[in-house]
Amino acid sequence: MIVLFTDFGLEGPYTGQMKAVLRRSAPAAEIIDLFADAPRGDPKASAYLLAAYAAWFPAGTVFLAVVDPGVGGPRAPIMIEADGRRYVGPDNGLFELVLRRAKGARVLEIAARPAALSASFHGRDLFAPAAASLALGQEPASRAIAPERHRDWPDDLAEIVYIDHYGNALTGLRAGAFAAESILVLASGARVGRAKTFSAVPPGAAFWYENSNGLVEIAVNQGRADVALALRIGSSVAIGA
Amino acid sequence: MIVLFTDFGLEGPYTGQMKAVLRRSAPAAEIIDLFADAPRGDPKASAYLLAAYAAWFPAGTVFLAVVDPGVGGPRAPIMIEADGRRYVGPDNGLFELVLRRAKGARVLEIAARPAALSASFHGRDLFAPAAASLALGQEPASRAIAPERHRDWPDDLAEIVYIDHYGNALTGLRAGAFAAESILVLASGARVGRAKTFSAVPPGAAFWYENSNGLVEIAVNQGRADVALALRIGSSVAIGA
Amino acid sequence: MIVLFTDFGLEGPYTGQMKAVLRRSAPAAEIIDLFADAPRGDPKASAYLLAAYAAWFPAGTVFLAVVDPGVGGPRAPIMIEADGRRYVGPDNGLFELVLRRAKGARVLEIAARPAALSASFHGRDLFAPAAASLALGQEPASRAIAPERHRDWPDDLAEIVYIDHYGNALTGLRAGAFAAESILVLASGARVGRAKTFSAVPPGAAFWYENSNGLVEIAVNQGRADVALALRIGSSVAIGA
Repeated sequence: MIVLFTDFGLEGPYTGQMKAVLRRSAPAAEIIDLFADAPRGDPKASAYLLAAYAAWFPAGTVFLAVVDPGVGGPRAPIMIEADGRRYVGPDNGLFELVLRRAKGARVLEIAARPAALSASFHGRDLFAPAAASLALGQEPASRAIAPERHRDWPDDLAEIVYIDHYGNALTGLRAGAFAAESILVLASGARVGRAKTFSAVPPGAAFWYENSNGLVEIAVNQGRADVALALRIGSSVAIGA
Repeated sequence: MIVLFTDFGLEGPYTGQMKAVLRRSAPAAEIIDLFADAPRGDPKASAYLLAAYAAWFPAGTVFLAVVDPGVGGPRAPIMIEADGRRYVGPDNGLFELVLRRAKGARVLEIAARPAALSASFHGRDLFAPAAASLALGQEPASRAIAPERHRDWPDDLAEIVYIDHYGNALTGLRAGAFAAESILVLASGARVGRAKTFSAVPPGAAFWYENSNGLVEIAVNQGRADVALALRIGSSVAIGA
Repeated sequence: MIVLFTDFGLEGPYTGQMKAVLRRSAPAAEIIDLFADAPRGDPKASAYLLAAYAAWFPAGTVFLAVVDPGVGGPRAPIMIEADGRRYVGPDNGLFELVLRRAKGARVLEIAARPAALSASFHGRDLFAPAAASLALGQEPASRAIAPERHRDWPDDLAEIVYIDHYGNALTGLRAGAFAAESILVLASGARVGRAKTFSAVPPGAAFWYENSNGLVEIAVNQGRADVALALRIGSSVAIGA
């Protein structure tokens, strides 16, 4: 299974062309669109999202992960094996949390370069062929690399990293670390208590909960938390008492 | 064939994770994205849309239908066989019109509960495994249930139930019931006549027509009816003389 | 491989129903979503986009291309063989640039009409069955036709034809025709120089580059060109010295 995690959008030509490459090279692989709207051009916020959602997939999954504002510049193309999962993408911090949380990891620079390599679309020309090879059980030509690390990034990010289709705001905080009575304090000063699920609070009420992938998520029952609480990617949050 | 009808969006993680479950459990099934933008959190409007579009698919199709604002609350998970089609989803009125229009129907509560059941994502954890079983010709463990019925809902809904990518406004009215010269009267007082198709009226003109699934649909040739006529989901319409 | 190029959107029922037809008729064919957001109701702008992106795909590919504001009117349904690729869609100019740039082309009118042909959704009822037949190596019943030609349209269109997910603005100009030092002059009078890729200019700077399919594309590093430069589909550009 090849799982796509990008900021490409599903419409427009990018995801489609990348899938065309995968289909031609690895026709038997299943392709799953996980995120096509990862935080745009933001490897840091994306790194927390990727680590939280990748953990749900079984060993053997190949992640083709491309949030790559430096495409065409000097950043290396890499592939990673971490806890039995494989990752392909740019060496720009996108895999920082995957690496940090892994029991064991191996990082290699992709050495192969296609005959036709565009300056702006390595997802199609470089990363997709590498992901297809991995899905076929082959390893692309590679060399050792010490990946870029961001040890100053926190283990959990107290910021909004994603706004979903319903207006719910996902943070980079893992909920397991927090006591049931924890209050989430927003940058506006608003204080949001915890609930188990939507129907546990009245319509229009804001709450936070542990979402289905373990992250702290802010929601409004039958409403949009992003609008009601003025949240967007990068908004700070804090855990209060 | 498994047909998805949800308010999850295609981007973001929800549809992708649900498909990952289907792919693992029923790899040979075809998966079709029908609606990922059904009326958000609105089982009533969604029920008219689902009944109109499901009728186009052949017997044997499995519909995985999730518009589920009460997820995590007491509403039951159900599966339905109606006129040879199968449906899986929440017992919250979403299947009211499917049941009402069926020549024969059987409703069961899904009894199986997965080991890991999140509070907020039954589409992935509960409904998708059940739909995969049905697609494989197996029946998940179940028990008899008298589903929630909404007999006060009309047979045809004189409201906008969906705004499409072009700004066309679909109602919950089946066009077959109306005479060719019927006038549609909007809440604003605007009166809209019938045409066969877009090119039958001048650019910029509003009209209604029987859409390709039998519903009364309001459109503007080379324009957006939602903007031109201030229509949104829930806007009332009436049939005049 | 069947490649979809439409203005239908991926959400909503249109792409899904069209795929359901393809899946039933040609289950072994791969289906690729290339554009579901081609310029809405605009066969001219779409024609430049289609010609640029179709050229990337190998011979044998079937393009199901539907940008069809005249659906239900007199325009003919056609199929084209051009340089080994096949195209199915409306005869409204959408294939003008494909035809003009082809070394050799053959155009036929699709003669078959399905028993159930809706007035507004020929993508599902007429074009998809024809595309499925072509993917199976069969040729639908057809007759000779002299397609609509638009010889007054330029070989390269000095207008924005698409705004992508990042806010980048694609023109209908092929970059190969322009010297490296060419300046792009916008309708606003703004002058935009060329760069190889995003990371070659400072954050916030506008530039143009040859995109991964050979078109002149206007971008802002770490920003949105459409917003920063007030560009939309149809905005004029010119090449300066």
